[in-house]
Amino acid sequence: MTIRRVAIIGLGLLGGSIGLAVKARSPQIVTTGYDRSAAVRAEAAARGLVGTVHDTPEAAVKGADLVILCVPVGAMEDAARAIAPGLKADAIISDVGSSKQAVAEALARALPGHTIIPAHPVAGTEQSGPQAGFATLFAGRWCIITPPEGADAAAVETLADFWRALGSKIELMDASHHDLVLAVTSHIPHLIAYTIVGTASDLEDVTESEVIKYSAGGFRDFTRIAASDPVMWRDVFLTNKTAVLEMLGRFTEDLTALQRAIRSGDGDTLFDLFTRTRAIRRQVIEQGQDDERPDFGREHGT
Amino acid sequence: MTIRRVAIIGLGLLGGSIGLAVKARSPQIVTTGYDRSAAVRAEAAARGLVGTVHDTPEAAVKGADLVILCVPVGAMEDAARAIAPGLKADAIISDVGSSKQAVAEALARALPGHTIIPAHPVAGTEQSGPQAGFATLFAGRWCIITPPEGADAAAVETLADFWRALGSKIELMDASHHDLVLAVTSHIPHLIAYTIVGTASDLEDVTESEVIKYSAGGFRDFTRIAASDPVMWRDVFLTNKTAVLEMLGRFTEDLTALQRAIRSGDGDTLFDLFTRTRAIRRQVIEQGQDDERPDFGREHGT
Repeated sequence: MTIRRVAIIGLGLLGGSIGLAVKARSPQIVTTGYDRSAAVRAEAAARGLVGTVHDTPEAAVKGADLVILCVPVGAMEDAARAIAPGLKADAIISDVGSSKQAVAEALARALPGHTIIPAHPVAGTEQSGPQAGFATLFAGRWCIITPPEGADAAAVETLADFWRALGSKIELMDASHHDLVLAVTSHIPHLIAYTIVGTASDLEDVTESEVIKYSAGGFRDFTRIAASDPVMWRDVFLTNKTAVLEMLGRFTEDLTALQRAIRSGDGDTLFDLFTRTRAIRRQVIEQGQDDERPDFGREHGT
Repeated sequence: MTIRRVAIIGLGLLGGSIGLAVKARSPQIVTTGYDRSAAVRAEAAARGLVGTVHDTPEAAVKGADLVILCVPVGAMEDAARAIAPGLKADAIISDVGSSKQAVAEALARALPGHTIIPAHPVAGTEQSGPQAGFATLFAGRWCIITPPEGADAAAVETLADFWRALGSKIELMDASHHDLVLAVTSHIPHLIAYTIVGTASDLEDVTESEVIKYSAGGFRDFTRIAASDPVMWRDVFLTNKTAVLEMLGRFTEDLTALQRAIRSGDGDTLFDLFTRTRAIRRQVIEQGQDDERPDFGREHGT
C-alpha cells in the first residue's frame, strides 16, 4: 500500500502540524483538508497547512488513501459520519485522539466495514488553532498505534510508515492499555494542573495578582499545561473516565501519605521520595523526551 | 549605608548565581564565600563564583557589610551560629530561603542583637550545586523581603537596592503572608509534582519505561520540578507546614469536585474551569513571568 493522498479533517494544532510535516518530509503526498470553521479554513489556506482546503468533509476526503481525524475526541463520531459519503472503499481511517477505546468504538459505529486504525501521536503544545501548528512537532516523539482486533497488518504498517516519515517513533499497543498509560503520563498531569491553577485563583487570603507575580516558584509551569484547549481536554476526561478515576485514586493515596509525613515532621519519607523522583527526570532526558537545558531552556533575563 | 563587601554562605545554585550577578552588575562590591563542602569550595573557586572562597565561615564574613545565607532552610540556624564570631556589629544578615517565618525565628535565635532582614528571591531552576548558577537568574524576577517588626528601614532599603542592582523587582511582605502565598505558587506545585512522579513510577500495570517514553503528554513537565534539590524541599515542607497543609486542603477539595464531575459526566464544570485557567496563563505571560513561546520555547526536533 502506498499513500499518495492524505486528507486531514480538523486543521488545528495537530491537523495543521501533520499538513506542514507532510509538506516538509513527504512532499510526494498530496494533502487536502477540511475544518468545520470557515475562519479556520481561511487561515489554513493562507498558511498553506495543506495543498487544498475544501469546503465540505466529503470533498476533502475524495480519493484519499489515508484520512486522519484531528478533532476533539467527543467530535470524532460526527466527523466520521460526515466523511462517510466521500470515502474510497479501501481508505485507511485514522485519528490523533488522546483516548483510544472510546474513539475506536465511535469510529466503528460511524464507519462499519471501513479500515479503521486509531493512533495517538504523543506530542503537542499548550496552543491550539490553525496558527499553532509546525512541521517538527512529531520529530523524536512517540506515535502509539492501537489497531483493533483483526486489523489489516498491511494497513497498520502503512500508517506506521506514514508517521515514521514525519519523524515519529512507533509503538503498537492495545487501546485499553494505551488509555491507562496516558491517564498517568498525560491526563492526570493535566487534571492536577487545571486544579491547582483553579485553586490558586479562588483563594481569599492570596490575591490572583500575587499568584501571578510569584508564579516563577513553580506555579507558572502548571499554568502552561492548564492553558491547553478546553474542549479537547473536557472530551478526554469524559471519554477516558475509568482509567482517569483509577489513576486519580492512586495519586490521591500517595498525596495523603505525603500530607501525613509533613504533618508528623517525617523528613526521611519526604527526602526518600524527592531523591527517587530526580532519577526519573534523568531518564526522561536520556531518552530524548525533554530538553536537557535547565528550566526547559527557558530564556532568562539579561 | 553602602554595601562594599558581601559574603555568601552556601555556594550552590542560589549562592553561586548571586556571586556571578554581583560580579556582572555590581562589580564595585567585593565578594567572599564559604561552603561547608570542600568540593563545592574548590568548584566555586574554579568558576570564580565569588572573589575569594574561604575555608571557614568566620573568615568568609570578616568585614562583610551584607551576609547572605544560601543554605537549605533547615540548616539556617547552624549556619548563622557558625558565622557569628566573624560578623561586623553593623552587618546586615539576610538569606534566600523559601519559607520565611521559620527562618526569621532561627536567625533571631542564633544572632541576637544583629540586623536580620530575611529575603526570598523567587527564582531558580531544577538544578543545584556550584555548577548550576548563572548571572541572570534574578533578572525580571521578584525578590520578596520580609522585614521583622521594628526592622531598620535603612537596612531594608539597602538590601532592596542590592537586589534591584541584580535585576530583581522588590516587594515587601509580612513573613506569614509570604509563607501562605508561596505555599500556593511554589510549595504545593512542587509537592504535587513530586507526588505524581512517585505515583507513576510505582504502578504495576504501567511500567516505568512506558511512563518515560510517553512523558511528552504532560508528565515530563512535572519531572523537571520533581528533580529539584531533595534537601532544600524537605526543609521547605517541614518549616512551612501550616500554610502547606492549609493550601493542600484547598487543592484536595477542588480535585475531589473535579473527580465527581468526571464520574458523573459533567462536561460543563470541566469546560468552565479549563477556560478560566487559560486566562491565568495569559496574565503570567503578560506580566513577564514566563516565556511566551509555546512549550516554554523548548527545542523541538528537526
